[in-house]
Amino acid sequence: MSIHEECGVFGAIAKTNLDIGNLVYYGLYALQHRGQESCGIVVNDDGVFTSHKDLGLVGEVFGGGALSALPQGKIAVGHVRYGTTGGNNRNNCQPIEVNHQKGRMAIAHNGNLSNTAELRDSLELSGAIFHTTSDTETIAYLVTKERLHSGSIEEAVSRALPSLEGAYSLVLMSPQKLILVRDPHGFRPLCFGKTADGIYVAASESAALSAVGAEFIRDVAPGEIVVFDGENVVSRTEHCNKKPKKLCAFEYIYFSRPDSVIDGISVHKARFRAGEILAERRPADADIVFGVPDSGLDAALGFSHLSGIPYTIGLIKNKYIGRTFISPGQSTRIDQVNIKLSAIVDNVKGKRVVLVDDSIVRGTTSGRIVKLLRDAGAKEIHMRISSPPFLHPCYYGTDIDSEGNLIACKYTVDEIAERIGADSLGYLSVENLSEMIGNRSYCSACFDGDYPTAIPSDTRKDRFEQKLSVKSGADNLREGLLP
Amino acid sequence: MSIHEECGVFGAIAKTNLDIGNLVYYGLYALQHRGQESCGIVVNDDGVFTSHKDLGLVGEVFGGGALSALPQGKIAVGHVRYGTTGGNNRNNCQPIEVNHQKGRMAIAHNGNLSNTAELRDSLELSGAIFHTTSDTETIAYLVTKERLHSGSIEEAVSRALPSLEGAYSLVLMSPQKLILVRDPHGFRPLCFGKTADGIYVAASESAALSAVGAEFIRDVAPGEIVVFDGENVVSRTEHCNKKPKKLCAFEYIYFSRPDSVIDGISVHKARFRAGEILAERRPADADIVFGVPDSGLDAALGFSHLSGIPYTIGLIKNKYIGRTFISPGQSTRIDQVNIKLSAIVDNVKGKRVVLVDDSIVRGTTSGRIVKLLRDAGAKEIHMRISSPPFLHPCYYGTDIDSEGNLIACKYTVDEIAERIGADSLGYLSVENLSEMIGNRSYCSACFDGDYPTAIPSDTRKDRFEQKLSVKSGADNLREGLLP
Amino acid sequence: MSIHEECGVFGAIAKTNLDIGNLVYYGLYALQHRGQESCGIVVNDDGVFTSHKDLGLVGEVFGGGALSALPQGKIAVGHVRYGTTGGNNRNNCQPIEVNHQKGRMAIAHNGNLSNTAELRDSLELSGAIFHTTSDTETIAYLVTKERLHSGSIEEAVSRALPSLEGAYSLVLMSPQKLILVRDPHGFRPLCFGKTADGIYVAASESAALSAVGAEFIRDVAPGEIVVFDGENVVSRTEHCNKKPKKLCAFEYIYFSRPDSVIDGISVHKARFRAGEILAERRPADADIVFGVPDSGLDAALGFSHLSGIPYTIGLIKNKYIGRTFISPGQSTRIDQVNIKLSAIVDNVKGKRVVLVDDSIVRGTTSGRIVKLLRDAGAKEIHMRISSPPFLHPCYYGTDIDSEGNLIACKYTVDEIAERIGADSLGYLSVENLSEMIGNRSYCSACFDGDYPTAIPSDTRKDRFEQKLSVKSGADNLREGLLP
Amino acid sequence: MSIHEECGVFGAIAKTNLDIGNLVYYGLYALQHRGQESCGIVVNDDGVFTSHKDLGLVGEVFGGGALSALPQGKIAVGHVRYGTTGGNNRNNCQPIEVNHQKGRMAIAHNGNLSNTAELRDSLELSGAIFHTTSDTETIAYLVTKERLHSGSIEEAVSRALPSLEGAYSLVLMSPQKLILVRDPHGFRPLCFGKTADGIYVAASESAALSAVGAEFIRDVAPGEIVVFDGENVVSRTEHCNKKPKKLCAFEYIYFSRPDSVIDGISVHKARFRAGEILAERRPADADIVFGVPDSGLDAALGFSHLSGIPYTIGLIKNKYIGRTFISPGQSTRIDQVNIKLSAIVDNVKGKRVVLVDDSIVRGTTSGRIVKLLRDAGAKEIHMRISSPPFLHPCYYGTDIDSEGNLIACKYTVDEIAERIGADSLGYLSVENLSEMIGNRSYCSACFDGDYPTAIPSDTRKDRFEQKLSVKSGADNLREGLLP
Repeated sequence: MSIHEECGVFGAIAKTNLDIGNLVYYGLYALQHRGQESCGIVVNDDGVFTSHKDLGLVGEVFGGGALSALPQGKIAVGHVRYGTTGGNNRNNCQPIEVNHQKGRMAIAHNGNLSNTAELRDSLELSGAIFHTTSDTETIAYLVTKERLHSGSIEEAVSRALPSLEGAYSLVLMSPQKLILVRDPHGFRPLCFGKTADGIYVAASESAALSAVGAEFIRDVAPGEIVVFDGENVVSRTEHCNKKPKKLCAFEYIYFSRPDSVIDGISVHKARFRAGEILAERRPADADIVFGVPDSGLDAALGFSHLSGIPYTIGLIKNKYIGRTFISPGQSTRIDQVNIKLSAIVDNVKGKRVVLVDDSIVRGTTSGRIVKLLRDAGAKEIHMRISSPPFLHPCYYGTDIDSEGNLIACKYTVDEIAERIGADSLGYLSVENLSEMIGNRSYCSACFDGDYPTAIPSDTRKDRFEQKLSVKSGADNLREGLLP
Repeated sequence: MSIHEECGVFGAIAKTNLDIGNLVYYGLYALQHRGQESCGIVVNDDGVFTSHKDLGLVGEVFGGGALSALPQGKIAVGHVRYGTTGGNNRNNCQPIEVNHQKGRMAIAHNGNLSNTAELRDSLELSGAIFHTTSDTETIAYLVTKERLHSGSIEEAVSRALPSLEGAYSLVLMSPQKLILVRDPHGFRPLCFGKTADGIYVAASESAALSAVGAEFIRDVAPGEIVVFDGENVVSRTEHCNKKPKKLCAFEYIYFSRPDSVIDGISVHKARFRAGEILAERRPADADIVFGVPDSGLDAALGFSHLSGIPYTIGLIKNKYIGRTFISPGQSTRIDQVNIKLSAIVDNVKGKRVVLVDDSIVRGTTSGRIVKLLRDAGAKEIHMRISSPPFLHPCYYGTDIDSEGNLIACKYTVDEIAERIGADSLGYLSVENLSEMIGNRSYCSACFDGDYPTAIPSDTRKDRFEQKLSVKSGADNLREGLLP
Repeated sequence: MSIHEECGVFGAIAKTNLDIGNLVYYGLYALQHRGQESCGIVVNDDGVFTSHKDLGLVGEVFGGGALSALPQGKIAVGHVRYGTTGGNNRNNCQPIEVNHQKGRMAIAHNGNLSNTAELRDSLELSGAIFHTTSDTETIAYLVTKERLHSGSIEEAVSRALPSLEGAYSLVLMSPQKLILVRDPHGFRPLCFGKTADGIYVAASESAALSAVGAEFIRDVAPGEIVVFDGENVVSRTEHCNKKPKKLCAFEYIYFSRPDSVIDGISVHKARFRAGEILAERRPADADIVFGVPDSGLDAALGFSHLSGIPYTIGLIKNKYIGRTFISPGQSTRIDQVNIKLSAIVDNVKGKRVVLVDDSIVRGTTSGRIVKLLRDAGAKEIHMRISSPPFLHPCYYGTDIDSEGNLIACKYTVDEIAERIGADSLGYLSVENLSEMIGNRSYCSACFDGDYPTAIPSDTRKDRFEQKLSVKSGADNLREGLLP
Repeated sequence: MSIHEECGVFGAIAKTNLDIGNLVYYGLYALQHRGQESCGIVVNDDGVFTSHKDLGLVGEVFGGGALSALPQGKIAVGHVRYGTTGGNNRNNCQPIEVNHQKGRMAIAHNGNLSNTAELRDSLELSGAIFHTTSDTETIAYLVTKERLHSGSIEEAVSRALPSLEGAYSLVLMSPQKLILVRDPHGFRPLCFGKTADGIYVAASESAALSAVGAEFIRDVAPGEIVVFDGENVVSRTEHCNKKPKKLCAFEYIYFSRPDSVIDGISVHKARFRAGEILAERRPADADIVFGVPDSGLDAALGFSHLSGIPYTIGLIKNKYIGRTFISPGQSTRIDQVNIKLSAIVDNVKGKRVVLVDDSIVRGTTSGRIVKLLRDAGAKEIHMRISSPPFLHPCYYGTDIDSEGNLIACKYTVDEIAERIGADSLGYLSVENLSEMIGNRSYCSACFDGDYPTAIPSDTRKDRFEQKLSVKSGADNLREGLLP
């Protein structure tokens, strides 16, 4: 059973050997928000692969000399990973590297296959062994098997893809080439650009191209394979447009950086529009509007813009509380949310407040924030959420909490408002999403259950039961954001 | 020669033994922005002092079991420290702890004495030895000497103070008491409050009281000594109001959190007013206004409010780039500022922009941000600074760059605008400060050279020359913020 | 190309869940001398495998809470590894763990296959991918392939073995069983015993059984498979005695602990006899005899016993110089051997000395020890080596230096004596080995080139050239011992 | 109340700047056996002191770049420290460094003052503050006070000494000089030598001079001050020979390396003689004799030599079990001594054994070793101890267990033999010590209570009671040895 995760991928290919690991390091820094559990870089120096991967943030893993210990090379790939499993599972760090009959290969993967179990069963029956629980290893096997009978690595990739179902944006490195692959639905973003020095770079988000000084060229199309050999760029579109495009709507709502542009849509603008829609469809009579930092800020601006209610800064986030925050015993009865967020009392006291956030999972954190604002003297609190309610699990790489924990599965909007202590609560509707994003080519299965692919038949129940035994699933994701 | 630094102090005293170290840990998290180099906590269990101090952020130093290894206690003090010296100078970690004839004492100090050299000379001539280069040790000596002839620790503190000149907000712990001291000018903030459980807590900023769930009681008055013994609170005001109050203006401009209220003035409001003043006195014809995150945001809101120019989010800060960011060799020619800050192109392209920041030191970073916005398509960039130009050194605990490096010492405002590439540039004037803060009880010596105390006669030149050999002084401070 | 190494393996199986990781931890401590580069433990709690593996000594890797973080279980396997490659190759840490069609499997391997290249080629042609450069992964693949068509894991192991050539002592763990395997030649030792609590334990050396309080039962026979399921012990001897036994002679000479008994022969006694043989065949007229600590001590006792020359302590080894020893720049011109070894001058001065060591690789260290003793006043130094000269590479898991570096490949015994500065030099002859060990069932290929299996045809030259580019190969091994 | 410890000191002074830190690093490695808790080096580059000190072994503390980060210099001092207090007491790391009126000073101290309490009281009454609990800080104060009125640092040292009572071997560094001081009784060793490059080096033991390639010149005389300025060596002997020499007898019995020569006596020879005396006065009818490694080996050789009973190796010590050894929960009921020591069964089985060890503290370890040998089949075990029974506390820097824990305080020799399970037990007598050492100039207070100085009047009882609350005191020391 594979672990579901959200990740970020990065790749670069130059014409000559240079400190290409540094470039990838910068790129991963710009993608750190997509995964904070582990990260890794593999550098390719004329077919010799050297890698460094470990649990931790990019700055932690590549501090202490690890970055400068990477050799020069022409090609490199990198990965940041978010995983729900705790502990010391270094095995699952990416990019994964394998040796096969025609040489070495490294793969960085963002997404999640929905038919992993079947693929794995079939491979195991042919004698395959697996070192990791990641479905990336399954992809590596399938490509390897095809490679034996293919004239090139890209041909092998092309042949392997039809058996994959679900979400995969891949950056794959062979001894001579860098290959980008996006699944036919285009669930996860992937784009590429070029630096002034002629280095091609690929990344999950356009913001990471800018971070390394590269100019954005274009998004990889759903179903497309793009092959770089340092000089030329070749596109293979065997599967392009064979299936409807289904970019994960949550990329706009929460995952991606506001300064990224995904498939032609500015993330900031989409969020701003979500705020405007909320102001129009879920209006509130209030004195001020502000967002929960950082992911509620853009929509709060949009709400203020359309409603005319003044925008302000109402909550301050402690920027030092991250992965290192340890929670000591509760003998002193301090509410953790008070350490992470605090109100600017002068702005809040005696005011009727519109508070904008991106989503509600269990409702626990929202309830605490509402209480914090009440303690700061807010007279009324009208909560607005820039996404529809979560109602269904995701099989494409997002780790949403189990249905049993999702507050929207158990209560009506009014009941939720009451439970979190808000004077009113308004969500975006599923229908609003197309207005927010500006097209209909997105996946909204977690909101409406409309899955673009077959879903794992037997795992649904299991999966949730398993997750119940793990602590806090999606609220972890959620709480991971707060810092 | 003492090292100049900005720091944060915290203290707590309960009626009975409890996990008081946890409380201080939370408090230091809330004060982390005041010092990221080192931190420490000393817990007092009925006269037995146990401490943990090290280089690093609060989460790093107290992770790995160090926090839970602290014993329970009735009293504890903590400290976060920013220092300009690099390397492994653990010796200077605070709170400092000393044994003297009447027992133990721990002191956490925010500020800087201006007559350290004289005091140290005199102590050394009586046989004193010094383990650190911190002037806190000097204070400890003077208190100790008076303690021999005093009936109580607070009496000793009171007798020692007259010989100190300069800035000191102290949290001092004896076996039985917690004592707060603020210098007669009140250069640095210090306040205290009380939790629902009856624990008294003291902190550099009110936001840290809120973080631990304590209700703010009041600021310590300049020159006041406040003594807590677990039950009672006694104020000694021998020196109160003997000298004009001179709170560091930079506490409002940059140092303190926007959600803190210092000496009755909301930091956010002061910054908002600075923005309004800039909009009135240094107006600009523009399409949008935004701030450099995080410290320019409040003033940008004020500028927008008074000018009517729409407020937006124009720059995104990478929240993962902190102390751990290592800068690899520049072979790939990436501009570091692109990793730390990036523009939301959709908001900036083709726009006339008002960009608000809190200060300019050397001008290097400002120049890079202007270029970044030009690259994102900004048509005009009007930079507004929510403080007057830096022209003079500080002797009260702020580490400002040497005059030779301060751009305002060398160029006119128009010349600076040209050097950083802005279409126009406007500072707050020194006169505006009283309007911004709402009173005249502040120190603005770094802007106007009007020092409230005698300044070290011989050190001025030395100090700057020394600093020139150190790398980057205040730009470090500045760059430390950007992440 | 696989990496050649010497390793230690350990396994345990109980009837019920208990802290079996602790038992393996103790066992690995007792085997630490067989590999100091990395180590690992895998615990099996009813089919759920939990592992911890890392570079470092057992105490380092399992300190800091890693040991107590292992769960309870019925079965566990452990491994210590010596590798010649430096750096961060965590991938090669053992035991390796794989998932296959019928569940999980963990393998700890001591030895080296001589037909790895052929086996890997063949597997890769069937689509296999390899994560490591270790031949243990090859074994895992072969067992997995057979497992698909076998009724039990032990049957799969039995079917896979005929294709393996070379040295392998395996401890293999399936969800329900612990399986011991020793290759048909029995190149590497493997034995098992039982604790008073009824826990079966297996180890490379009998000393590790004693260390955990287990009573030795017997050695695994060459070619034997021993299967434990917690209750019963079943032996499969399909291949037993099909080939002549060839235990590595160097296990007696140097690798194993003197308190181990391998295949019925006490290691201490074998070394003692080597000393006696040297005294008889390579006598010396001297005042005292002593050994190079620690591995020369047993033979020195034997030399003294037969010759009647008094035994003494002539050299002290610094027991703190281990893996952590860093060698700073040589500006101070200190001879490193002086830090590691020093003479007891009172015992050496003016004396004619017999100095016994276990082997000479490049001769550099021997030369330095001789000089050290001359500086301490030794009048004559007669060096005696308790093994024949190294002349050939090993393909069965011992990393011997390249022929170009082996002093015995280039010089006669007299020339070597002159080069190292000894007054005389005497080796054991190849013929003496049978006398020393007491039987003829050993491999002495590194001394006489008489390989029990086919050797890799094309790799010989390559291998040495490669090794030349690596630093110091066997002298590393050698120097690793000195500490 | 100062902490009692055994330590090692090292110093070096050259004519010109060089990598003198490396030299001290090597020297400390050679002295590591004298203290494993913490270590430090201070380098003096023309008056600028740079230091690195931390908890850990020399290789740990100076690994990871810390050694190479030390600057070049002309003078340097180093220290290794053994402390009985656990935890994170970095404050007590030495050498201590202080700033005083005439500059900087660093002191490395081996020994313990017996009048610390009085000295500290008096200093505190004059306003002194103490940062550490070490009596070295007291010495620093006294020297500093005299320095104010002295023409030179050596004059200040000379004036300060008369007020000190107890044990102190000091290596003291001023901006221009290296100064050696040994207390009038000469409780602790101290010697110096010179390298071929003309660098003067000083160390606790002669073996450390050899380790850095220096030739031994002579021991510092009791009461002597030796002053080095890079060119000249000046001896001040104001106090020399004013008091009877009292070198700690335990330096010969256990503390010092066998290859050291202390005050003209070879440590190995003294131990060998102890073995001979035991063979003569405490004979045993036995088949073999061997020692508990490592400190019982020399005496075992002596016992064998005089008695004619063959010497052998009976016990093997696991050389990897050191400070890093963690002891997991005892669920698996493994006797720890089995991990640390193991028997060579072939040598022990059926034999009547003489087992030689250096001392017995609580008897626990001895009892386990006897049991281990019985389990290995020893027929009779005759234990011989190369020192008299411990009966009294030490006030001069050795941390002996409390009287309540000392087995010899509670039982007769025959009773002890019975408790540890030995067939017979024989100690050296106090009278034998002069024969062993070859003179009468030693302190044997821990054996006979004959203290050369006044002892702390009130602390005796306190001290023991305190120690009872600490875990395991001297058995820790003892167990520290076993690894």
